[in-house]
Amino acid sequence: MERLQLRKMLEAFYLEDIGSGDCTSEVIFDGQHGRAVIHSKSNGIFAGGQIIKEGFRLLNPDIQVHLRKQDGETVSQGDYIASMEGPVAALLTGERVVLNLIQRMSGIATMTARAVECLNDPHIRICDTRKTTPGIRMLEKYAVRTGGGFNHRQGLYDGIMIKDNHIAACGSITKAVERARSAAGHMMNIEVEIETEEQLHEAIAASPDIIMFDNCSPDTVRRFAALTPKHIVTEASGGITMNTLPAYQGTGVHYISLGFLTHSVQSLDISMDITDSEEE
Amino acid sequence: MERLQLRKMLEAFYLEDIGSGDCTSEVIFDGQHGRAVIHSKSNGIFAGGQIIKEGFRLLNPDIQVHLRKQDGETVSQGDYIASMEGPVAALLTGERVVLNLIQRMSGIATMTARAVECLNDPHIRICDTRKTTPGIRMLEKYAVRTGGGFNHRQGLYDGIMIKDNHIAACGSITKAVERARSAAGHMMNIEVEIETEEQLHEAIAASPDIIMFDNCSPDTVRRFAALTPKHIVTEASGGITMNTLPAYQGTGVHYISLGFLTHSVQSLDISMDITDSEEE
Amino acid sequence: MERLQLRKMLEAFYLEDIGSGDCTSEVIFDGQHGRAVIHSKSNGIFAGGQIIKEGFRLLNPDIQVHLRKQDGETVSQGDYIASMEGPVAALLTGERVVLNLIQRMSGIATMTARAVECLNDPHIRICDTRKTTPGIRMLEKYAVRTGGGFNHRQGLYDGIMIKDNHIAACGSITKAVERARSAAGHMMNIEVEIETEEQLHEAIAASPDIIMFDNCSPDTVRRFAALTPKHIVTEASGGITMNTLPAYQGTGVHYISLGFLTHSVQSLDISMDITDSEEE
Amino acid sequence: MERLQLRKMLEAFYLEDIGSGDCTSEVIFDGQHGRAVIHSKSNGIFAGGQIIKEGFRLLNPDIQVHLRKQDGETVSQGDYIASMEGPVAALLTGERVVLNLIQRMSGIATMTARAVECLNDPHIRICDTRKTTPGIRMLEKYAVRTGGGFNHRQGLYDGIMIKDNHIAACGSITKAVERARSAAGHMMNIEVEIETEEQLHEAIAASPDIIMFDNCSPDTVRRFAALTPKHIVTEASGGITMNTLPAYQGTGVHYISLGFLTHSVQSLDISMDITDSEEE
Amino acid sequence: MERLQLRKMLEAFYLEDIGSGDCTSEVIFDGQHGRAVIHSKSNGIFAGGQIIKEGFRLLNPDIQVHLRKQDGETVSQGDYIASMEGPVAALLTGERVVLNLIQRMSGIATMTARAVECLNDPHIRICDTRKTTPGIRMLEKYAVRTGGGFNHRQGLYDGIMIKDNHIAACGSITKAVERARSAAGHMMNIEVEIETEEQLHEAIAASPDIIMFDNCSPDTVRRFAALTPKHIVTEASGGITMNTLPAYQGTGVHYISLGFLTHSVQSLDISMDITDSEEE
Amino acid sequence: MERLQLRKMLEAFYLEDIGSGDCTSEVIFDGQHGRAVIHSKSNGIFAGGQIIKEGFRLLNPDIQVHLRKQDGETVSQGDYIASMEGPVAALLTGERVVLNLIQRMSGIATMTARAVECLNDPHIRICDTRKTTPGIRMLEKYAVRTGGGFNHRQGLYDGIMIKDNHIAACGSITKAVERARSAAGHMMNIEVEIETEEQLHEAIAASPDIIMFDNCSPDTVRRFAALTPKHIVTEASGGITMNTLPAYQGTGVHYISLGFLTHSVQSLDISMDITDSEEE
Repeated sequence: MERLQLRKMLEAFYLEDIGSGDCTSEVIFDGQHGRAVIHSKSNGIFAGGQIIKEGFRLLNPDIQVHLRKQDGETVSQGDYIASMEGPVAALLTGERVVLNLIQRMSGIATMTARAVECLNDPHIRICDTRKTTPGIRMLEKYAVRTGGGFNHRQGLYDGIMIKDNHIAACGSITKAVERARSAAGHMMNIEVEIETEEQLHEAIAASPDIIMFDNCSPDTVRRFAALTPKHIVTEASGGITMNTLPAYQGTGVHYISLGFLTHSVQSLDISMDITDSEEE
Repeated sequence: MERLQLRKMLEAFYLEDIGSGDCTSEVIFDGQHGRAVIHSKSNGIFAGGQIIKEGFRLLNPDIQVHLRKQDGETVSQGDYIASMEGPVAALLTGERVVLNLIQRMSGIATMTARAVECLNDPHIRICDTRKTTPGIRMLEKYAVRTGGGFNHRQGLYDGIMIKDNHIAACGSITKAVERARSAAGHMMNIEVEIETEEQLHEAIAASPDIIMFDNCSPDTVRRFAALTPKHIVTEASGGITMNTLPAYQGTGVHYISLGFLTHSVQSLDISMDITDSEEE
Repeated sequence: MERLQLRKMLEAFYLEDIGSGDCTSEVIFDGQHGRAVIHSKSNGIFAGGQIIKEGFRLLNPDIQVHLRKQDGETVSQGDYIASMEGPVAALLTGERVVLNLIQRMSGIATMTARAVECLNDPHIRICDTRKTTPGIRMLEKYAVRTGGGFNHRQGLYDGIMIKDNHIAACGSITKAVERARSAAGHMMNIEVEIETEEQLHEAIAASPDIIMFDNCSPDTVRRFAALTPKHIVTEASGGITMNTLPAYQGTGVHYISLGFLTHSVQSLDISMDITDSEEE
Repeated sequence: MERLQLRKMLEAFYLEDIGSGDCTSEVIFDGQHGRAVIHSKSNGIFAGGQIIKEGFRLLNPDIQVHLRKQDGETVSQGDYIASMEGPVAALLTGERVVLNLIQRMSGIATMTARAVECLNDPHIRICDTRKTTPGIRMLEKYAVRTGGGFNHRQGLYDGIMIKDNHIAACGSITKAVERARSAAGHMMNIEVEIETEEQLHEAIAASPDIIMFDNCSPDTVRRFAALTPKHIVTEASGGITMNTLPAYQGTGVHYISLGFLTHSVQSLDISMDITDSEEE
Repeated sequence: MERLQLRKMLEAFYLEDIGSGDCTSEVIFDGQHGRAVIHSKSNGIFAGGQIIKEGFRLLNPDIQVHLRKQDGETVSQGDYIASMEGPVAALLTGERVVLNLIQRMSGIATMTARAVECLNDPHIRICDTRKTTPGIRMLEKYAVRTGGGFNHRQGLYDGIMIKDNHIAACGSITKAVERARSAAGHMMNIEVEIETEEQLHEAIAASPDIIMFDNCSPDTVRRFAALTPKHIVTEASGGITMNTLPAYQGTGVHYISLGFLTHSVQSLDISMDITDSEEE
Repeated sequence: MERLQLRKMLEAFYLEDIGSGDCTSEVIFDGQHGRAVIHSKSNGIFAGGQIIKEGFRLLNPDIQVHLRKQDGETVSQGDYIASMEGPVAALLTGERVVLNLIQRMSGIATMTARAVECLNDPHIRICDTRKTTPGIRMLEKYAVRTGGGFNHRQGLYDGIMIKDNHIAACGSITKAVERARSAAGHMMNIEVEIETEEQLHEAIAASPDIIMFDNCSPDTVRRFAALTPKHIVTEASGGITMNTLPAYQGTGVHYISLGFLTHSVQSLDISMDITDSEEE
């Protein structure tokens, strides 16, 4: 993740939460230093070490952060993730923004890892979608990678994706792919979304870089994947849940994209405590 | 919600998703106009009409938006939420950002309404926390209100909340409330978090505006609420889930704050289709 | 005051004043270091130490700032407030923005302290209003606190204030308070502005958190305060000047809000000198 | 004044005051339209028509603004300055920011006009300084022009001003002006600040575009102005008050710059009322 | 090009040029309306119609813009490109920013078209690089497309490009491509830069999506292209000028990227005149 | 150049190029440190040392930058300009933005120096125009100064320039200058553009600070310069190229402004290499 971009985001998030000032800390404390630990209250995959480091340092450069867990590591209930030392007021002021982010990111990483495990097929990659929370896509896509998933395109600007609505409005898959091919440079891939075998054949003839099988059953995905020439990458998407995922094992598709990884996140429970003890 | 602030947020979200341009729409379409509908694919409470209106108009002032559902209304699978007319390219360019927001907001409103129903006590108000997604707190807190909930403080700037960490670092509840009282004006409320009966008595003596019972069982909440003088507002928080919520019915506490309303949202399934038909 | 927010503001203020560059310093100096002192040229209450510290360091991290006066301390003509060492060019480039801010803030703190003294009633608190200079409210409200005053609400977002215009447009105090009460959470206070005794009785019945007596003479304020039940906070506002303030002593009202503290500020005269001498 | 810059500033000021929303208006009103008038409660020179126009339209494009007074016109107590029609909620939401700005700007215009009148010398121009409120210099300098004054440089970027501190650090007036002259293009003027006759002679020999007589009595100003060659513009500055201004009449200096025009502003009392009557 | 992003850029550019106001127009004009034409003073390919439309409307919504030339059309000396009607002051205020942009964009489009013509090979596409002017890459890449060229990646975020420095630091092409392949999703292409035949063979074995022949003579490019398997896209880059371009005709490479298209632009001479005549 | 402004610009330029992250460096490297050198591949005048220093430090504060050439120094092909040590990934991530800027700035400085040399008249100063690249005017004008040129006004805000279009719309030079003079303060200069001798006489009578001879031959410039009184600065502009420049030698005009210095820049060829060797 880009540090400049991350700091810009953190700054905006702090301003949202702190506004003109943390009136509690300002009133209660008078500069005393202290120590705090961040620890997990459940099991999962941790993501967000950079958030903790940059987050507290941005708020107050005097805060020292020591990470105990790296991104992608498993955490169990009670595990220490990080410890920080510095002005107590600043530690408490920063707590909520940092936790909100790493809880969400770790939740995504955990879910992604679970999906990979659930599918249990080394030849199929789990990937994300554009169904991310507006404003923090960079963080959410990073968390997907941390959990062992892959990223689909970043946004509308870095990949051509011809969906049912585009095809309907344009007239045909053939015409849409042709227009795309005549405009796209060599770093830009073209993906076509199909639902029926007829569409699949039309798509194959048009020769995009990727064909996506939308809302298809595992059997259909297996059949469509077999019909598709080797040089075209295949993707299954739409309506696939953690429950139906195992059935896609061995279908031969290259990618399965899952919207729920980012649009319906279960935060990982992580909390922060001010602590005196040296032992932990 | 503030329109200027909302437009500023929408602009940032579009820039995140669209970047230098929607390369698919730019290539496929040549200015043709069309019609699109937004409809629900599941049951819940809708929130986000202003997002649809401002969102599409911001992208292209020529898009006409007609809302079929108002914020707070129940939607069932298949219900039309809105219809839009204008340039097809712009409709498809804006689709994802608008859906990402209203799906999340409607998910929060639906969850909040479910919590209110689940608790089923007209004398206890459900409220949110600061465990919101960084960058869109205004939208998430609005969605909580839409679902029948209430807002806790907006951020660190508009309410004094003395938690366990503050008390530990400050020395005592008494001292912390005194410092807060001597600094806070009349528009600023002071809340103290307590866990034990001993703390409750100390808190009552210090006379804050609100006392929050942290991680207490329904029985403890009932007892603590009864012990607290009338002029102090009470709140229960910490570890309360949709499952344990009904047990808090009749406890006499004034507010129950629920972090999961915003930190672990199940998006409401809503989608957009380009449509020719006039009927719907 | 929030450091991140303060730095953001200072950066904007420097860009306003410096633009593409301080063409005088750039031309005259060639990297030489020097020493400067900030001293008061009149008597008053100092406010703005953080401005000096963050301000010069933001411009050039090599500048060392040593504060001689803390916020809230009395300064007399000739008193040293701070000394700085570093590149002369940067010291002179930053001078004006820093002085413009601390002169204004100290002016507000001085005026507030004078009002507190003038009123001379330990049971009545002096507070500010929203009549602040757009863009620097955080600084002005901080200066009021520094001078011994209290802050009214920060803005339209953190307190409900039902004024004559609202009442007129809504129909009645009763209806307006009811609507507010049914929407506001427990961290949000409701204040009603009244002018007549009839309104006072209606307001008391509606039971807001605060009642404000608008444009009332000291005698009326005394009478209205006596009529108001204990659990409702009272505030006098409107047309009160430094001259009429003493007459409000002993009226029993809890707060007196004064617009002139921030809308008609007399800057405290403070200046900066480049100095060679070690003595001062 | 630049409209784009003005809108950007107004947007920032609204966000400061409104934040996540005007919780009073949102709760009380339900879309009703109404009419409001802005009128003066004291006598002075009005400045800020563009603020009213752009300000309300920015908040809500449905608000119609009708200006009754133009910038620079005299207003007397009771005079109508503007009337607006549109949603009552938006009118009340925008009220404070608009008033805070026009009260301050009209205060500056009034003070400037008073200074011009007080000096009463058509051959001497009153001008401002850089002692403006950070963040709103454009508005304050505009108000000075509206009141009949002139603008000194905008900031550090558009004029070279060699002050005592620069001279001290550089070694001599001669050297400082030489360096400036060798670097400055033809659109950039060079001003030198002097205090003594010896410095004046050195400055004249160095031939800057403007010589400023700092902290000089009227007699000294008269003598210095007479000594200065015609092609050099002269300016008096430092410690001149409304009281001492008349004594500078006829001194032959070209400009008198007054810091108090912008650093110690007495706001003009202006208010807004929701009104039903059609008459006014 | 994205309209929201474009408007944001135009706003920033206007603020850079106009600052606190166009002091010439403000002083000279008093609201009079007029007509202006933009016409070419040399021959080339026009690019930037959207700049003219959005640019003037952003400055003043009352300005009507009528485009006579579309992006990509040839313009000859004397040709009218656009005509505008509205307030003369605003037309003159906006002139320079609009011209600076369209002159540069048209210069790029013209140069690109010349390169395409010069190469004269329908099987080889001309494309750009990341050697664009910081801050306006979106506009420059658009201009390349307008002139008949193609875009390489937008930035560091939307394509993996393994250059000599990466290979040196990583150890080998093989290792670098492997790492990239194991991390990149299906919408992300991988390009490797090679200079020698040995590197070419290593690259082919590693199987990236694109191989770039850096600093190779036309003969080498022809040979390398012939050696590369069909499914790998090839690109020639480095040191190719308008003069050497024709020699690359028929080399069989797919893309030739040219840095000079954007880093050493010859602006197309375009100017604006206020005009009374109706004829043109 | 202003450091705060420069950092703000650099941050924006990095975000444009890096976006959500440099996916190549992230994938290839794992924290290894290295050394890079920036060296010139052609002959010219270097400009942009501050870009290298601030640029790399902004990206990663651990990067050490050592400048070998100062701004304004001559560089020959092969000369080292700077060396940097730090994380290889960050060095490569920052490379392009830094090079794009210093190549352009050095190109401008080189061209300016060439123009000065070409004109070869110590009594005539070469200056720039407002025909700069939108968004980086501060950098381009700095580069002109670095090459031995002077700056014309920064923008529309810091100088009054009455051009043909203004004169046409206003009625006459006399009227336009009068209006300008009556509004402009003493730090603001007034320039008038003329084309004919008749206009010259009218302009001289109006007595602006500067008269600009637009599109005049060397002979005309000589004649017009001789006709203009000494206290008015003269400038020649319009259609002057590197080829025609020598003919303006000895014409007696004070300034010659050249648009091509910034609108048609030939970048200086500068590149960066990762290096192991200690020798260079």
